[in-house]
Amino acid sequence: MKRILILGAGRSATALINFLVGKAKEDNTYVTVADMDGSLAEKAVGVSEFAKGIQLNALNEEERLPLIQEADVVISMLPAHLHIDIVKSCLANNKHIITPSYLTEEIDALHQEALDKNLLVLNELGLDPGIDHMSAMQIIDGIRNKGGEILEFESFTGGLLDSKTELTNPWRYKFTWNPRNVVLAGQGRAVKFIQNGTYKYIPYHKLFRRTEKIEIDEHGKFEGYANRDSLKYRSVYKLEDARTIFRGTLRRPGYCRAWDMFVQLGVTDDSYNMEGVSTMTHRDFFNSFLAYNATDSVELKMMHYLNLRQDDDVLLEKLDWIGVFSSELVGLEGKVSPAKILQHILEKKWTLEPHETDRCVMWHKFIYKMQDGVEKELHSSMVVEGEDSVNTSMALTVGLPLGIAARLILQGKLKESGVRLPIHASIYEPILEELKKYGVLFNEKHVS
Amino acid sequence: MKRILILGAGRSATALINFLVGKAKEDNTYVTVADMDGSLAEKAVGVSEFAKGIQLNALNEEERLPLIQEADVVISMLPAHLHIDIVKSCLANNKHIITPSYLTEEIDALHQEALDKNLLVLNELGLDPGIDHMSAMQIIDGIRNKGGEILEFESFTGGLLDSKTELTNPWRYKFTWNPRNVVLAGQGRAVKFIQNGTYKYIPYHKLFRRTEKIEIDEHGKFEGYANRDSLKYRSVYKLEDARTIFRGTLRRPGYCRAWDMFVQLGVTDDSYNMEGVSTMTHRDFFNSFLAYNATDSVELKMMHYLNLRQDDDVLLEKLDWIGVFSSELVGLEGKVSPAKILQHILEKKWTLEPHETDRCVMWHKFIYKMQDGVEKELHSSMVVEGEDSVNTSMALTVGLPLGIAARLILQGKLKESGVRLPIHASIYEPILEELKKYGVLFNEKHVS
Repeated sequence: MKRILILGAGRSATALINFLVGKAKEDNTYVTVADMDGSLAEKAVGVSEFAKGIQLNALNEEERLPLIQEADVVISMLPAHLHIDIVKSCLANNKHIITPSYLTEEIDALHQEALDKNLLVLNELGLDPGIDHMSAMQIIDGIRNKGGEILEFESFTGGLLDSKTELTNPWRYKFTWNPRNVVLAGQGRAVKFIQNGTYKYIPYHKLFRRTEKIEIDEHGKFEGYANRDSLKYRSVYKLEDARTIFRGTLRRPGYCRAWDMFVQLGVTDDSYNMEGVSTMTHRDFFNSFLAYNATDSVELKMMHYLNLRQDDDVLLEKLDWIGVFSSELVGLEGKVSPAKILQHILEKKWTLEPHETDRCVMWHKFIYKMQDGVEKELHSSMVVEGEDSVNTSMALTVGLPLGIAARLILQGKLKESGVRLPIHASIYEPILEELKKYGVLFNEKHVS
Repeated sequence: MKRILILGAGRSATALINFLVGKAKEDNTYVTVADMDGSLAEKAVGVSEFAKGIQLNALNEEERLPLIQEADVVISMLPAHLHIDIVKSCLANNKHIITPSYLTEEIDALHQEALDKNLLVLNELGLDPGIDHMSAMQIIDGIRNKGGEILEFESFTGGLLDSKTELTNPWRYKFTWNPRNVVLAGQGRAVKFIQNGTYKYIPYHKLFRRTEKIEIDEHGKFEGYANRDSLKYRSVYKLEDARTIFRGTLRRPGYCRAWDMFVQLGVTDDSYNMEGVSTMTHRDFFNSFLAYNATDSVELKMMHYLNLRQDDDVLLEKLDWIGVFSSELVGLEGKVSPAKILQHILEKKWTLEPHETDRCVMWHKFIYKMQDGVEKELHSSMVVEGEDSVNTSMALTVGLPLGIAARLILQGKLKESGVRLPIHASIYEPILEELKKYGVLFNEKHVS
């Protein structure tokens, strides 16, 4: 009986745990789920003779060592900065390890050790990063293998709402993953990409106004804003000669224009703390960013500040729906940043109800030429809807690649070794093939 | 014969050195100017039997100790972060010390030691901070001493051009102090102030559009943008009950609107480095921040991006004059941030010619009430013009307070001890009185 160790039983691990525990009998595997919170781990596992949930402080080497030693493959769902220690323990004990997190230089430095020991350290294996790498590289390699060349590559991913839920909400959006990342999106590092051979840079305060329009058959229209650094994908995908490389995040049309109102106000700033939070209402919070005026209402000042007209209903409705003008107390204490206050206000409205669920969307665009020199355009898209507010498509698309990879390793079907991203055919082919069985698949469309 | 030690002989120390060396014979003092660059120190001092310029690595305790020991008062013009070591050496050797730099917590922690030894560590004694503290506190104390109360306080300072030079330049601006600080103005920390009892916050990308209009008799109109943190002056000036506290920087009208174009483009960003700098022209640099368009010129894209009309000549002329659309090479190598590239481009046009000089402007506004409860408004302004591109009013207004304070200490007329700002009458009264003799004086105006 082979053993799988999953570190972390939080919300992002639920679908992964359900998947592997569900396969345990068929696979003849035993799944151990370990979390700082033992009862959370037990609850995540449920009742199974092929699995258990236990309490573990994964930071404590003595505690984690026996668990790693008895495992055949380890999946770490811990916060990204903790992975380095876990990876080192795995290599020291001759275990494969898989994580959904971005590869760091520290982990990458262990490549030779992993090669020497014939072990696989597989990173960036969730949705984005993860399914994006695999689906894009499958098409890129396919074109290259036929002697073609990639001229332009664009790729967008979005965690959105399912068709029913989005109709109840003028933003057509709720939080379906880490709310803090949504509030801070685009901040911190510069947005860089290359378009038709020219390097382009977008400052944060223009990011949500420089969007791209996208349409996916049967799923309607979307808009995409640029991710921070598209250039790093150039070397990863070997696209050094491509004239355009652009990666972005998808939202439903109108979201970005509306979110830009928050950016313009300065309410997404996380760099300082505000005064008087404990007695602050939503209305007070937003008023702090509007110029003083002895007679005008907050509504009027807001319209003036944002250059809105009386009949800009689409934008005003979004502000009103989220409670911007409400006299409700924010409900936080102490000194808190604008970004944290905004997040708290948004969470009151942007949290999935139990019966609501989400939809993950991914869209790639390739312009390429074969040896005849004729330029062709290919779109590839994935749309996955969730089941409910726990079994979301986000949880599923993050968890499935990890779970599938763990099974393939145990079955001897993933033979790569070293510190890797899932950009090699030997890795992405079997994983993408399995993903299809669970409805995670791509539609391709040639555009003339 | 008393001895004055000046550490640092850079551009910011020239006026101070000229002043103290010029007074040395009359005062029977000897002035030693020490700089890392010995020839710079010699040149700054010139020929005098009462002064010398010498080479010194002030960071080296063994080197600086004999100089501090033989001095009666030390003036440090070194970079702010080096002051702490110099202050410690001065206290250990029973010497007074004066600096123009912001007081740090580290230096403030030496207050008791300075008190015990009856030594003065006087900080923030330049123009801003410096003359602003002294002139504002003189008025605030004057009102308080008559039983009045300060309700509102606003204060603006600007390093601008003299009346002749500003006419040759559509921005009516050139660099007269540290160019890097001008390019990065408003970045890094949030802009905070209090207006009519409400805390207000301005994000960077709105800072240069939320200006205040100011007029000074005989000197015309100015505009002011907010400094980063006005709130810290609340406790320093004991203005806890004031309903408005606002501090800002003065420019000539139109500057801020035009500078905001750079902010909107993102070219003031210092947080990342750009690609391809060595072959980049001015035009390429600005084009990197404009959305790609296969047919439109950089001029057209710029107008579109900034929402400019064909006849927005005032703004377009400023861009054109500074060389935004020029095919001249930037002239930098390697990976460089947008802010550094912008500074380099601006320095080609914004550097004073030898015959050109500057003008420093300070303006305070007080709203106060006496015991009769009637609210009154008082404006106080200072305008100082320089002599040439070396003897600027900026160098003069930074150097004179330091030089005057050093003389007053040697004459036994500054009797304070401890770590201090010049906010006490015993310090600011004699310094302001002396400053008048050199044309640095304030005009008061009651407004009804």
